[in-house]
Amino acid sequence: MHEVTASIITIGDELLIGQTIDTNSAYIAQELNKIGAWVRRRVAIADDKEAILTTLGDEAKQSNILIITGGLGPTADDITKPALCEYFNTELIRDEGATTNVENIFQKLARPITERNLSQGLVPANCEVLPNGRGTAPGMYFNQEDVHYFSLPGVPHEMKGLMQSGVLPKIKSVFRLPAVAHRTLLTAGIGESFLADTILDFETALPAYVKLAYLPAYGMVRLRLTAKGEDEAAIKKEVDEKFAELKSLVKEWMVADEDIPIQEAVVKLLKEKAKAVATAESCTGGTIASLITSVAGSSAVFNGGIVSYANEAKKDMLEVKEETLTSVGAVSEEAVTQMAISACKKLKTDYAVATSGIMGPDGGTPEKPVGTVWIAVANKEGKVKAQKSNFRFDRGRNVELTVHTALNMLRKAVLEDAEND
Amino acid sequence: MHEVTASIITIGDELLIGQTIDTNSAYIAQELNKIGAWVRRRVAIADDKEAILTTLGDEAKQSNILIITGGLGPTADDITKPALCEYFNTELIRDEGATTNVENIFQKLARPITERNLSQGLVPANCEVLPNGRGTAPGMYFNQEDVHYFSLPGVPHEMKGLMQSGVLPKIKSVFRLPAVAHRTLLTAGIGESFLADTILDFETALPAYVKLAYLPAYGMVRLRLTAKGEDEAAIKKEVDEKFAELKSLVKEWMVADEDIPIQEAVVKLLKEKAKAVATAESCTGGTIASLITSVAGSSAVFNGGIVSYANEAKKDMLEVKEETLTSVGAVSEEAVTQMAISACKKLKTDYAVATSGIMGPDGGTPEKPVGTVWIAVANKEGKVKAQKSNFRFDRGRNVELTVHTALNMLRKAVLEDAEND
Repeated sequence: MHEVTASIITIGDELLIGQTIDTNSAYIAQELNKIGAWVRRRVAIADDKEAILTTLGDEAKQSNILIITGGLGPTADDITKPALCEYFNTELIRDEGATTNVENIFQKLARPITERNLSQGLVPANCEVLPNGRGTAPGMYFNQEDVHYFSLPGVPHEMKGLMQSGVLPKIKSVFRLPAVAHRTLLTAGIGESFLADTILDFETALPAYVKLAYLPAYGMVRLRLTAKGEDEAAIKKEVDEKFAELKSLVKEWMVADEDIPIQEAVVKLLKEKAKAVATAESCTGGTIASLITSVAGSSAVFNGGIVSYANEAKKDMLEVKEETLTSVGAVSEEAVTQMAISACKKLKTDYAVATSGIMGPDGGTPEKPVGTVWIAVANKEGKVKAQKSNFRFDRGRNVELTVHTALNMLRKAVLEDAEND
Repeated sequence: MHEVTASIITIGDELLIGQTIDTNSAYIAQELNKIGAWVRRRVAIADDKEAILTTLGDEAKQSNILIITGGLGPTADDITKPALCEYFNTELIRDEGATTNVENIFQKLARPITERNLSQGLVPANCEVLPNGRGTAPGMYFNQEDVHYFSLPGVPHEMKGLMQSGVLPKIKSVFRLPAVAHRTLLTAGIGESFLADTILDFETALPAYVKLAYLPAYGMVRLRLTAKGEDEAAIKKEVDEKFAELKSLVKEWMVADEDIPIQEAVVKLLKEKAKAVATAESCTGGTIASLITSVAGSSAVFNGGIVSYANEAKKDMLEVKEETLTSVGAVSEEAVTQMAISACKKLKTDYAVATSGIMGPDGGTPEKPVGTVWIAVANKEGKVKAQKSNFRFDRGRNVELTVHTALNMLRKAVLEDAEND
């Protein structure tokens, strides 16, 4: 079977001056991958007609599918539509459906509609309009010489809606796609090199059509097995078997046997064990609570938390003793222990996790340099596990590492208690 | 003067299966842009030797500088170094400095060193090693036929260190770069189209060498003016003048007249006015606190916050009345008003900001559909401003929009009080 390949082309000066981070490409790649299309290249170019024309031509020589995002806004720097007209040697015409959509949106918002807004109803004459249910810029589909082009707005939630409603169904109807199977697991607390040494024999023995990828991120490493082939059932079975083998090799460090972030694994575990958690955060400033609540349905296991950034807040809100703060300080085993126990009690939860540390760039001392962090997990019986870490990176990274370490400690505490029950 | 152009090439299967979001390219683009090099293209390709060789060849035909990240890890899927050897027709040799660096890092970590780790001390024979102060993989610089190649590890904080210590100084020493001036401002509470109509005459009258970019993101729009030319002083003066004009046109919506996120603008304002703030978050689950504390030095203006996710936490921790919860519910003007007033009192601050809403995907009702949010800002005199919004997107986007709206309301309240003082 011929492999179906795609190029993702993102258009926008903001990508080349580094002012925005391209999250669209990752989403598009994921969705194409799931249906068995292989993303060969991702290219970001400027809002520049020549660059657009050259890139369309280059990528069309090598890929079956071109997904183009960006440059469809109503402002003067958005030039994707004129460029597409030139590329396909056609002109803009008014599309009734797309125009009505713009009018409806403005009517709903009770805002006056301008010429500029109405221009969003114009599309190249040779395109098939993909209706945008989430915004004013229509999606567009073009087919020329066996290459399939999709032009989508760059606004992430509009692009996502159009991928689901227009792009993926069209691709599936046009191509016969291969079967693909993925299995991903998440580890924490082990470095990439040690993980690689641990599973060296496994990796060496993998058949050529099964690939293993290491995806490290902030104190965690994801392992992903991918297989592609003709026979969907056989591919799936093969990957499942190898995945079971891999799981047993890394079980000591495995946080989840699916592709989810650690906060989702923790929420799932708490739901499974019917336990609730609270947070008591100093140096992480609410980030643990923010991550937990980013998981839909987390309200079943998360009562709330306290961000005790100032020392006074630690005393007032979390009963940290004055004496502790003056003797050993806020970044200490004593302080995080008191914080965790108090949060557990005040928020009436089974567990609480507490953090206190020096995230930088300022505030470090010779005894407690930037990156020094104490983390504690308490359960409602008063059992506490506290741990000191030394991260010593920049502020953002220190916070991320602290948060992941704290969530992993919470996970381990819940598992340990469940075993002893 | 000849324009200096760059291509950024990111290598990694994980980018093409969409498992990681490429934040490195944005950073690199920003840094190159600041010194006057123009990023022409960003290309992401697989850990595949053929793809690497083809892309290096293609980009070298068009750009003066190639910055390559990724594929330098110690595992088998990292093949950038062998690919570079083939491209430059050379072989790997051991570099003493890079090897000592690996040894030192493992000694510091008190971890055993493996063959796999030591292989990070091998580099192509024709490269100049750029020492990596933050990790084991060395940066590498190659010069061939007037094209300058840099190969950097994909780990963001290592890449950033190498950009500053190795890449940028080398580029500045090799090229005579043009002068570039940027000025950016941040607006909130106005859509891109309306903004464009407001400044239409201004935009039309801009000289050709001054560009205006619209950068929308979650309820905010950044406007960026860029000029490039021979004479640094003249360019800077021109952009400053145009920027002053732009500021006066959009002052009603302007959050900051520099390129900073809204949380940084809010922390700056609070510092300037010597005011402290607390948070009382339900639906945003700690995200406002997390954003505020992501700003270095925020401890001067942020005492702490309460994440009252469960209704019981709203009663216990923030004195929300039982009667309020049973009559109008937690997503109401009454509830957020009580939350804000209580947080202000409990955390002894000048201001508090409170949120309560339904972020989705579940929990919506006909009266309060997903995306319904109440936000309140209180000051310590008990003055409260509360506002209802209807966002109706997905959970993540609803949280982002709520957080930005809340921070903007806080900003306005502080400014209004300061005016009335």
